[in-house]
Amino acid sequence: MPRYRMTIEYDGRPYKGFQAQAELATVQGSLERAIHAFCGEAVRVNAAGRTDTGVHALGQVIHIDLEKDWRPEVVRNAINAHLVPEPIAILDCEIAVGDWHARFSATERRYLYRILNRESPPALDRGRVWHVRKPLDADAMHAAAQTLIGHHDFTTFRDLACQAKSPMKTMDVAQVRREGDEVVLAFASRSFLHRQVRSMTGTIAEVGVGRWAVEDVRAALEARDRTACGPVAPSDGLYLTGVSYAALNASK
Amino acid sequence: MPRYRMTIEYDGRPYKGFQAQAELATVQGSLERAIHAFCGEAVRVNAAGRTDTGVHALGQVIHIDLEKDWRPEVVRNAINAHLVPEPIAILDCEIAVGDWHARFSATERRYLYRILNRESPPALDRGRVWHVRKPLDADAMHAAAQTLIGHHDFTTFRDLACQAKSPMKTMDVAQVRREGDEVVLAFASRSFLHRQVRSMTGTIAEVGVGRWAVEDVRAALEARDRTACGPVAPSDGLYLTGVSYAALNASK
Repeated sequence: MPRYRMTIEYDGRPYKGFQAQAELATVQGSLERAIHAFCGEAVRVNAAGRTDTGVHALGQVIHIDLEKDWRPEVVRNAINAHLVPEPIAILDCEIAVGDWHARFSATERRYLYRILNRESPPALDRGRVWHVRKPLDADAMHAAAQTLIGHHDFTTFRDLACQAKSPMKTMDVAQVRREGDEVVLAFASRSFLHRQVRSMTGTIAEVGVGRWAVEDVRAALEARDRTACGPVAPSDGLYLTGVSYAALNASK
Repeated sequence: MPRYRMTIEYDGRPYKGFQAQAELATVQGSLERAIHAFCGEAVRVNAAGRTDTGVHALGQVIHIDLEKDWRPEVVRNAINAHLVPEPIAILDCEIAVGDWHARFSATERRYLYRILNRESPPALDRGRVWHVRKPLDADAMHAAAQTLIGHHDFTTFRDLACQAKSPMKTMDVAQVRREGDEVVLAFASRSFLHRQVRSMTGTIAEVGVGRWAVEDVRAALEARDRTACGPVAPSDGLYLTGVSYAALNASK
């Protein structure tokens, strides 16, 4: 019973998040329908990250177990064909080795958040960036992001609906840089709490517009209190860009 | 009677091109409606380039003449507000000097063409790139593009419906480069014939997949015959990226 490992891309706009929910359009639901249409097997798709409503992915990693042996490129092309016209694409597919698991074997998840920082609204990137009119100080935002690096209790940046057992997480990367009209935030951690990236981004943006000082972000983190969080950034600008795995099956 | 000069961005997908046509959604029609809603004036929008159905713009330049004097930023913000929810945005607005004209004063138009060159279809960039599965040799494509540089009769690369008086044009820039999974073509000329960029791109792509040699592109150009053209690339990947003007009112 081969396990297929795939990297996938999707536009999160039409979906109520990754995770399958009866009657609602979800990435998982669409994938499972396409897989069934291709080979007749009713499988469960396992993913590295259960992205929220409207959140995009450039490098989500999933796996499925199939009864039948297929060449990986056949699996990729057949699922892509059955996904048309949905904005989900299988980028690559390979046979997983040993007991590798898309979710449990992941050692790092990477997210990117795009803010369009100009007076005019987005035309081409509507739904794919957060539009912030007030000029953002990316250097100040970067300084604020550094207070989140390391092992902390992230209760402040965790949605009340979060089901993780512990609020303790280790932030390995938290970078903010300006790229022309955009301010781009990059985060990496073994795993994230529910709405953690959007909560951190919205809070860091308060520093960018000058309403908060860098120290206010540190104080918010140390408060370990959801009410100490700044506004939560919208889903539009959030992308799951990649997942890393140890040793065998190392991800790109 | 002030003349307002604006740089605009749009997603070409919902529009039957720039130019207003009764009963059809067009960029010009939407702009003129938004301007009328803002100030009550029924004006004609003049544009540097009359982009085709589905073609996008990152730096289209337009002008309008209004009876009333408004501050340029008021004009920009009011039109943007009245354009919601259409994927068109006024990026900047200023008062034009002298007899400057968005179309007739332009000295250079720049276009970019994006090809997604991978096995899997686009998910996030559907309708915004041309998907070519066969591996493209970008260096060979660049060599082919060089045969188009200079002053030529571009009849081969001109749509039969083209209304320009002469097929003679001067190609100043024709570059092809690979950027990861994408092959990007850039063209610059004082002006272009109808469907010229898509005709050149489709033909150059034939060199990229190895069906044509570089010399075949030169021969096609020299044939001055529409039937010598390769396939015409789809509108999805085409962007008007900028327009230049001489002296006063120099464009970014």
